[in-house]
Amino acid sequence: MIDLAIADLKFPPPGIVIRELMREISKINYYPSGDYLEIKQAFCDYLRPDVSLGPENLVFGNGLDEIIDLVTRVWGGVNLIPAPTFSQYSMAAARSGHREISSNMLHQGKYDLDFDEADLRKASLVWICNPNNPTGDLISRKKIEQVINSARGMVAVDECYYEYTEKTVVDLIKDCENLIVLRSFSKNFGIAGLRLGVAISSPKNIMKIERIRQPFNVNRLAEKAGVIVLRHKNEYKKIWQRVLKIGKKFAAEIKRIGYRPFPVNANFVLVDFLDETKASEAYLKLKEGGIKTYPGWSEEDFQGSLNQHIRFAIGAERDMNLVVKILKS
Amino acid sequence: MIDLAIADLKFPPPGIVIRELMREISKINYYPSGDYLEIKQAFCDYLRPDVSLGPENLVFGNGLDEIIDLVTRVWGGVNLIPAPTFSQYSMAAARSGHREISSNMLHQGKYDLDFDEADLRKASLVWICNPNNPTGDLISRKKIEQVINSARGMVAVDECYYEYTEKTVVDLIKDCENLIVLRSFSKNFGIAGLRLGVAISSPKNIMKIERIRQPFNVNRLAEKAGVIVLRHKNEYKKIWQRVLKIGKKFAAEIKRIGYRPFPVNANFVLVDFLDETKASEAYLKLKEGGIKTYPGWSEEDFQGSLNQHIRFAIGAERDMNLVVKILKS
Repeated sequence: MIDLAIADLKFPPPGIVIRELMREISKINYYPSGDYLEIKQAFCDYLRPDVSLGPENLVFGNGLDEIIDLVTRVWGGVNLIPAPTFSQYSMAAARSGHREISSNMLHQGKYDLDFDEADLRKASLVWICNPNNPTGDLISRKKIEQVINSARGMVAVDECYYEYTEKTVVDLIKDCENLIVLRSFSKNFGIAGLRLGVAISSPKNIMKIERIRQPFNVNRLAEKAGVIVLRHKNEYKKIWQRVLKIGKKFAAEIKRIGYRPFPVNANFVLVDFLDETKASEAYLKLKEGGIKTYPGWSEEDFQGSLNQHIRFAIGAERDMNLVVKILKS
Repeated sequence: MIDLAIADLKFPPPGIVIRELMREISKINYYPSGDYLEIKQAFCDYLRPDVSLGPENLVFGNGLDEIIDLVTRVWGGVNLIPAPTFSQYSMAAARSGHREISSNMLHQGKYDLDFDEADLRKASLVWICNPNNPTGDLISRKKIEQVINSARGMVAVDECYYEYTEKTVVDLIKDCENLIVLRSFSKNFGIAGLRLGVAISSPKNIMKIERIRQPFNVNRLAEKAGVIVLRHKNEYKKIWQRVLKIGKKFAAEIKRIGYRPFPVNANFVLVDFLDETKASEAYLKLKEGGIKTYPGWSEEDFQGSLNQHIRFAIGAERDMNLVVKILKS
């Protein structure tokens, strides 16, 4: 089976990264650093073109999933979550026993932030995923600023696909005490297997998370890998360009067949098959052809808004060509 | 500095384990399995001489620290914690905002379980570490059974040093719905850096933890490493025997100097220096000699019960000989 369902990076790390990581294996009997200062320093350097921050502005987690859980445990209560979006904001709220307000943002096939002012005043925590998973839409900086200004509580902006478009609001951290920006190393630097995510905010906010994280929450290999991949970021730039090129070509082909691809701003493409029957036929045909995909109707959080949609992770060019061939047949 | 403070396994993994793990590095762009079925099956096989359980009896965590956090989040409320013991039971209670009842178990230099019956009826969660960290004492099976029978709530028995003595109550899982046994891969199989711990209990109890864990809480390398080290457990047996031999020789030397070593049932030795001045002199002398140790008075949780004690991780024989030489000088 070719797995285009889960949207990890479908390209292995550069050879030099693998070789440097291999050297770390013989030291896995030692605990991680616990203060994670080396990866914090390296990430501050990485952020520098956009904003100048210090280690006190960062907390690393066991993947972005853990960061989402920790943010929810600190600021959750009434969680305002746009729909459709990444499922873990809602799952984290459920796991912590918090209340959720879900707000549909998909109107006439276009996803845009359009929160109710009353909801923004009620919520203790507002989630924004930008670019949005699974639709791929980019949300404008102006819209995010409006949410930050109107919200009574904390606004968490998940930028785990940042590297594909380089759009960010991380520079607003300096002025907005109610903003927390999330980044990951999974979809971009391809270390999803090791689990590494980071939250960026004011030292006061970061301290609240630090206080409830476990002392060795990030494993030793993930902290080392974070430093190594940032050192080789130029190698990764070629991978990101390649992913976008393959994705845009795939979207063009999909359009030519007569279906509607969503914008390509990350390592996946959402496709609207225009009706539910066509979508489920396509899903089954692909499955029979050996291709696993992510159907919008499988995910409860989408609340019926994606019943004619399938999300495709962007894989190797020959895999995407095979999808097109099967859909055409 | 020689670090005998933190009690990770001071011996690197066997060469074959390192080589097998290196092969996994090229796949770190893929997420972990999520169901962790392969490591669950392997661990069931590993438990087999003591008890026959299935994957539904196990949940793996990002190190035992995460398991302690999850257990506390599910059953905490009033947490009954013996003193002195491993600090994370108390820390997890604090992180979750739960109440703690601390109960001193060190009487005339001997650690034994001696809970107040009223406390056992009050507590929603009782912690037992066996052998106990940092004292090294083994708690008898009979005493643990008494606690399980008297407790109103859940009893968590942390057996993270199991491999050094092979004493366990894991077989009681079958009959005791209020028992959860914890194991780790840090102190024994030497993968502390990768983070892998496991909780063993009834399927009903395990399901409560599964429901609040993150979908990819254990990283891909840890789940692979767990399977690999269990396959090579006979290689590790030699390491455990070596650790105990070095530790017992060290304890005998300490006794000869005139100090009081606690029992050697794990990869550390607690030493009673008989008065506070001698203990702090020894600590400073060792530090000047390049040896970092773990002084009992540095840890708030010990509540003054270990003010004349230092814990030594068991390292290479030459490191332990150096400790003895410095203490004699």
